[in-house]
Amino acid sequence: MDISIARDKIIDALNQARREVPLVGSITNTVTVNFVANAQLSVGASAAMVYLPDEGTQLAEMADAFYINVGTLMPIYEQAVPATAKRLHELGKPWVLDPVGIGIGSLREKLLIAVKEYKPSIIRANASETIALADMWGLLEGAKANVRGVDATDPVLAAHDAARALAQWTGGAVAVSGEQDVVVNEEQSVLLEGGSHFMEKITGSGCSLGGVCAAYAAVADPFTAALTASAAYDCAGLSAQAKANVCAPASFQVAFLDELYTQTPEQVADSKMCVL
Amino acid sequence: MDISIARDKIIDALNQARREVPLVGSITNTVTVNFVANAQLSVGASAAMVYLPDEGTQLAEMADAFYINVGTLMPIYEQAVPATAKRLHELGKPWVLDPVGIGIGSLREKLLIAVKEYKPSIIRANASETIALADMWGLLEGAKANVRGVDATDPVLAAHDAARALAQWTGGAVAVSGEQDVVVNEEQSVLLEGGSHFMEKITGSGCSLGGVCAAYAAVADPFTAALTASAAYDCAGLSAQAKANVCAPASFQVAFLDELYTQTPEQVADSKMCVL
Amino acid sequence: MDISIARDKIIDALNQARREVPLVGSITNTVTVNFVANAQLSVGASAAMVYLPDEGTQLAEMADAFYINVGTLMPIYEQAVPATAKRLHELGKPWVLDPVGIGIGSLREKLLIAVKEYKPSIIRANASETIALADMWGLLEGAKANVRGVDATDPVLAAHDAARALAQWTGGAVAVSGEQDVVVNEEQSVLLEGGSHFMEKITGSGCSLGGVCAAYAAVADPFTAALTASAAYDCAGLSAQAKANVCAPASFQVAFLDELYTQTPEQVADSKMCVL
Repeated sequence: MDISIARDKIIDALNQARREVPLVGSITNTVTVNFVANAQLSVGASAAMVYLPDEGTQLAEMADAFYINVGTLMPIYEQAVPATAKRLHELGKPWVLDPVGIGIGSLREKLLIAVKEYKPSIIRANASETIALADMWGLLEGAKANVRGVDATDPVLAAHDAARALAQWTGGAVAVSGEQDVVVNEEQSVLLEGGSHFMEKITGSGCSLGGVCAAYAAVADPFTAALTASAAYDCAGLSAQAKANVCAPASFQVAFLDELYTQTPEQVADSKMCVL
Repeated sequence: MDISIARDKIIDALNQARREVPLVGSITNTVTVNFVANAQLSVGASAAMVYLPDEGTQLAEMADAFYINVGTLMPIYEQAVPATAKRLHELGKPWVLDPVGIGIGSLREKLLIAVKEYKPSIIRANASETIALADMWGLLEGAKANVRGVDATDPVLAAHDAARALAQWTGGAVAVSGEQDVVVNEEQSVLLEGGSHFMEKITGSGCSLGGVCAAYAAVADPFTAALTASAAYDCAGLSAQAKANVCAPASFQVAFLDELYTQTPEQVADSKMCVL
Repeated sequence: MDISIARDKIIDALNQARREVPLVGSITNTVTVNFVANAQLSVGASAAMVYLPDEGTQLAEMADAFYINVGTLMPIYEQAVPATAKRLHELGKPWVLDPVGIGIGSLREKLLIAVKEYKPSIIRANASETIALADMWGLLEGAKANVRGVDATDPVLAAHDAARALAQWTGGAVAVSGEQDVVVNEEQSVLLEGGSHFMEKITGSGCSLGGVCAAYAAVADPFTAALTASAAYDCAGLSAQAKANVCAPASFQVAFLDELYTQTPEQVADSKMCVL
């Protein structure tokens, strides 16, 4: 693949999201739901969140793309998540799966197994979650994830094979985020650098990245969308950290969201990335 | 009506909320609940949020006013919302209805129809939601709302007749918010200007305005309360956007909440408004 | 007790939390859950939030400490809270109870009575909640709490006897927070000063203090942990309020979280405190 073509596609996706204001539906956790919505708004999308099954399926029909995050599960998720994912699959609508918290509780495992057949267009996860999901879906031999709570304990590159296996199953893309990021589909892998060490000191940098993947999936193919979102996060993280008034996580978060809104497509497309 | 009398009443409401620290109960969505509470605290109120039916009715008895927002419905809302609205109506306590997401899902429609008879003191909505609610309540002939997710696609003035019809039913006030704002009761209509284009780029500017309407409804009549909240938002939005360090939505949100807290009653009462 | 020994222990706890990144599980309310998680991350911990009973018990096993806050109860809390508290007690894991909203609703009372036997390592509450909990647990004669919504209407020192009675029952510590703070265990009482008047103007300063108590309880005894968290909050509040750009609650909250992250253990240990 030619990275300069990828950069052009990134510019197009960023511009299109701002111009078209795609409607992105979400079923997501209560911890970071506000951050997810504000990040989606910052990149130009419109955000709507629901919990109930019939709202999920109806919003799937109305929305241009969808984000499903299995954090802070409530009992109603047992119906809402599979029904919504099924409808999205039937409609051929792009949707993003975020398997946060994989390994905790029986409902999360049940849901993650249930949505396998509905093939998410993009899977957004940290390295440990990526390996754990590939393992749960029976796509890996030998590898073992090291999940601890909601944090990764594996380096990003350790999840490359798992990410590839997942992409081969879904036919879509996988965005593994961490200190470095890897975005893959069935045939291509790109390594991205950038971001900020403050991103792991604020809750929801991963979730909101997943939500922004969905925003771009409304206007671009899954691989381009995952690449665009990852590059946008890396670029905004770098710029936010460099600001004079940013000394710690909370001021970083404000600056980061501001950067998501103000950075130019050309700045994002200039992010450090290379073909793997 | 005399706009200078309205300005005096606005000053009284702002002062009284800061002096009396009214207790405002809320049943509201998980996306913006934190923003709602912080906005209520910024204008001088005390905030308490609940989901359970018996907590709703008990808080209705304890509180000076109440805010009910039907975003991100969970199954328990089916009992909690009608029980709480009924108790508020029986007690003659002021309460604000926010029909966010109208048009999505069967429970939302059921709840919005159920609370019609409990006549909210204030309805806070965008233009499309105002028209959709008036239509759902059978108060309109011919008009059709253009709701898309949680965003308005109708201009504020297009909702004037619907707002009037709602106010005639409830005997209270309706605050239609958008680029301009219209506040009406059975007899009067005021058009307000101000705010900031950043307000639609942060999630919850509408919800928190509804929560702040409830804070002022604890110390003033519904029309004055809706007018005060709308003017406070327009004034704080303008001032926040003008701050030197505000370049984008996230820094705007911080500055906006700061302005809600620091702006003087006289500044708010000076907001651009005219009788329609 | 010797306050200079307490200061040394505070320094150790602050350093250890940053070095060891303890995993803190939480069941907490939707209003302030984001603030709780970000505060825990700011002091060095890792944060994971759940609602479901089997996730609570599993996270109790995985986590180094736990925070249970009974705000914004949902029906599933009826199973999740007692099951999780029981498991924590069986495992001898440190956990913090936050009885926010005590006095509202039947489920909250049921849960607070149910967890009495699982003896929380730390109880974090305002003065009125402390008195109300001691009363509910049958540990007080004569005293009466003045709870109003989620706010205290009693001064901190009025809750000293109640706090002592609670500590005698649990064998742990009680942190009563307000304009001043009192931290007690069965034998000792320390009065702390500091903080900022802005802390009562942002929602969740109490909840997030409870969450941070849990972070330090993962690396220190309950009394030291409660003292460390209270001193960290007093110190960060003072410093944040003194910042040039801080004029109101929202900018204060950003500065406060930044201070939690940047302040040195020595600065915190220097907080104004005395033996009662």
